[in-house]
Amino acid sequence: MNPEYSALLTDLYQLTMLQGYWQYEMHETAVFEFFVRKLPTQRNFLLAAGLEQAITYLEELAFSSAEIEWLAATHRFQPAFVRWLEDLHFTGDVEAMPEGTVFFADEPILRVTAPLPQAQFVETRIINLLNFQTVVASKAARSVLVAREKALVDFGLRRAHGAEAGIMAARASYIAGFSGTSNVLAGQRFNIPISGTMAHSFVQAHDDEISAFARFADANPGNVVLLIDTYETEVAAEKVVRLAPKLKQLGIDIQGVRIDSGDLGQHARKVRVILDEAGLREVRIFASGNLDEYILRDLMEGNAPIDAFGIGARIDTSSDAPYLDCAYKLQEYAGRPRRKRSEGKTTWPGRKQVYRTFDQAGRMISDVLTLREDRQGGDPLLIPTLRSGKRLDPPKPLSALRERAADQLARLPDKLRTLDRAAPFEVKVADALRSLALAVDKQASTVTSSDRFDFKSLEEQK
Amino acid sequence: MNPEYSALLTDLYQLTMLQGYWQYEMHETAVFEFFVRKLPTQRNFLLAAGLEQAITYLEELAFSSAEIEWLAATHRFQPAFVRWLEDLHFTGDVEAMPEGTVFFADEPILRVTAPLPQAQFVETRIINLLNFQTVVASKAARSVLVAREKALVDFGLRRAHGAEAGIMAARASYIAGFSGTSNVLAGQRFNIPISGTMAHSFVQAHDDEISAFARFADANPGNVVLLIDTYETEVAAEKVVRLAPKLKQLGIDIQGVRIDSGDLGQHARKVRVILDEAGLREVRIFASGNLDEYILRDLMEGNAPIDAFGIGARIDTSSDAPYLDCAYKLQEYAGRPRRKRSEGKTTWPGRKQVYRTFDQAGRMISDVLTLREDRQGGDPLLIPTLRSGKRLDPPKPLSALRERAADQLARLPDKLRTLDRAAPFEVKVADALRSLALAVDKQASTVTSSDRFDFKSLEEQK
Repeated sequence: MNPEYSALLTDLYQLTMLQGYWQYEMHETAVFEFFVRKLPTQRNFLLAAGLEQAITYLEELAFSSAEIEWLAATHRFQPAFVRWLEDLHFTGDVEAMPEGTVFFADEPILRVTAPLPQAQFVETRIINLLNFQTVVASKAARSVLVAREKALVDFGLRRAHGAEAGIMAARASYIAGFSGTSNVLAGQRFNIPISGTMAHSFVQAHDDEISAFARFADANPGNVVLLIDTYETEVAAEKVVRLAPKLKQLGIDIQGVRIDSGDLGQHARKVRVILDEAGLREVRIFASGNLDEYILRDLMEGNAPIDAFGIGARIDTSSDAPYLDCAYKLQEYAGRPRRKRSEGKTTWPGRKQVYRTFDQAGRMISDVLTLREDRQGGDPLLIPTLRSGKRLDPPKPLSALRERAADQLARLPDKLRTLDRAAPFEVKVADALRSLALAVDKQASTVTSSDRFDFKSLEEQK
Repeated sequence: MNPEYSALLTDLYQLTMLQGYWQYEMHETAVFEFFVRKLPTQRNFLLAAGLEQAITYLEELAFSSAEIEWLAATHRFQPAFVRWLEDLHFTGDVEAMPEGTVFFADEPILRVTAPLPQAQFVETRIINLLNFQTVVASKAARSVLVAREKALVDFGLRRAHGAEAGIMAARASYIAGFSGTSNVLAGQRFNIPISGTMAHSFVQAHDDEISAFARFADANPGNVVLLIDTYETEVAAEKVVRLAPKLKQLGIDIQGVRIDSGDLGQHARKVRVILDEAGLREVRIFASGNLDEYILRDLMEGNAPIDAFGIGARIDTSSDAPYLDCAYKLQEYAGRPRRKRSEGKTTWPGRKQVYRTFDQAGRMISDVLTLREDRQGGDPLLIPTLRSGKRLDPPKPLSALRERAADQLARLPDKLRTLDRAAPFEVKVADALRSLALAVDKQASTVTSSDRFDFKSLEEQK
């Protein structure tokens, strides 16, 4: 059973709640929105990603007969409810920000409108998919802004949190502007350029470095990037110099060298000199080894002669902010707006839209968060995506999402493009939304002080 | 295609290296070991986990015909090499520390001994599996030590990094001593107790809280834990008090209440008083909401009357240390020990064993890292696990791994049981291992200063 598509990939409370909704026939339309409450301290903006997988999940949602049998065997549920689950599918609507869209705190990036049990049930996996890819794309975008035209490659599969994390991190970092990934399966699935040459073990398995380099080049003549830090980086660079003319005679060009340890900037400078003095100006220098956007910034500011970077663990785990303070919250049920008022977790009720305004140069000025019906100036960011359970447009190629992200990053105000913490981008809450929130609070305080439940009905039912 | 089992779930460089090994017939026995170079600052010990999935991966490793076709179509590889990949299986041996074993820096927790291409190829997924579960089990163990006899439940699926991460985090935290998970699929796959009741949306979907509570109890009479912080926690607790006798008449007991926001200790104290004064002493208090071991410690030290905790994002992402500085390194090839000497990444060569000694009370005193042949006092921690590609023992039930972890945690020296940084546990490097490392270095410095590759052979081959 593929866990990616199992309907059991959810929190138990979705099923216990559904049993309640089912028993009391609460099938009216519910509206849930996914948003981030607060940006991580180290982020000036977020980049939406993961929508394609969320849409696929909604389209394919169904319990297999084996899953139904297993649920029945837990004896946690009424038999008629388990039979009802057999027919659970997603028949609702989705509006969402396209992947690659820049967004900020409190702005919904996805709205689900569906019969309550459906809209409720999908919460866990929707958050699971949107949180992770958004977290990775948002961190990757920072490296992209810092590295400018230099190539960045995702090397993080080994320290990603499992199989799906590795694949989705490759996808999300590619959307954000990375050039490729070392992850072969991500390459196959998403047509992301794949990249990779040799590890230290290849060098160590030979009795000397130059044999390892020569054999690798001979076996992979179109992909000769030699790892030169297994023993002494500059000594290995000298060997590359000795090897290059001999390989040239065989028609093989050395494309690059990779440095994976020590002071990368310092080594790169020395290696560049060694290569240049030997006339190997076309041999590129790749760097890797626990990189992130901060180290990239230092290397860029130091003008390190590095042409491309492999970034691993810190991208695939978004190590400085591995999850978002995000939520998928009920905003309306049966035509009435709803609002959670738990301490520190208050939400904006109703169906919302985000309008974004730009200056004449196309740079973002500010956003307005308001009700969907309250038209404002600027571009609306939430777009109809799924209607009655079916997608409105075929999936976009990843290249299109990557172009959107690049365009969005180009439109960021300068103050948000820095790695340092900037003053938050202005997200205005429109009067229409404030009024609704007040109205909901007023109504709620009347309601919660009363005790309207009719216990008779419960007793009679028994 | 299930990504968990795809042979393409690897780094491209494994395949380019294999093409080199294949071309030069480098099929002799290689020995790789997985170890952690350095513990994260916030960890005094690590708890091994993920071995079962690593073993399954090795047993099942094979390219599907679709994968072989795709590889051929990339035109990155020689056709004969791709055909050779069709028959790639794992036929080697594995020694490993059982899951639930406490370990420290530099200690191998898994050794692979196999023909070089096999032992090399599996690197990416082996690291991917061992790193993540170990990271989660190690963090979860800290909460277990702090929470003592109180129940801890994994709530992290939604913010875990994808499907596999959510499932494996449930597994790893259960091994470490958690009582269960909210993750239904993890419950089904691994027979982990599942737990869950209601979200705020269930309360919000009703016009008042008491209706929500009554309906939930009626629909889930065996699992009545009511979420009381949607509006005002203590007001909701009073409603629970009013509801309890009416439910009692229907034969339904309220088992607990859950608080998910605000000052958990303060709310719990007030709610406990409200419940106790109404005679509801048996109603338990559950707490959740961005918990981790530090907040648990504070709540425990403040004697907060909380009976069980739900811990989510910070466990499933191991947020303060989301990856390990770990490696899977070549230690021997073709009978000769190997050593990587990259700056800051030097490794200990050869096939190793870890011996652990205990005091009379059964507490750990120190470890000795040495060569496998160099018998030392104490218990050897690496155990034969796979022989010629087949497992030596059937998989242990998760309960057995959980018991092992509990026993290991009980044997930790007191100084390592604290959340604060302690002086490192003593891991002695035996003379036999030091001597070998020196010998390897000496031999290597002779070799790397020479240039032994015979280019004639390369030219003749062309």
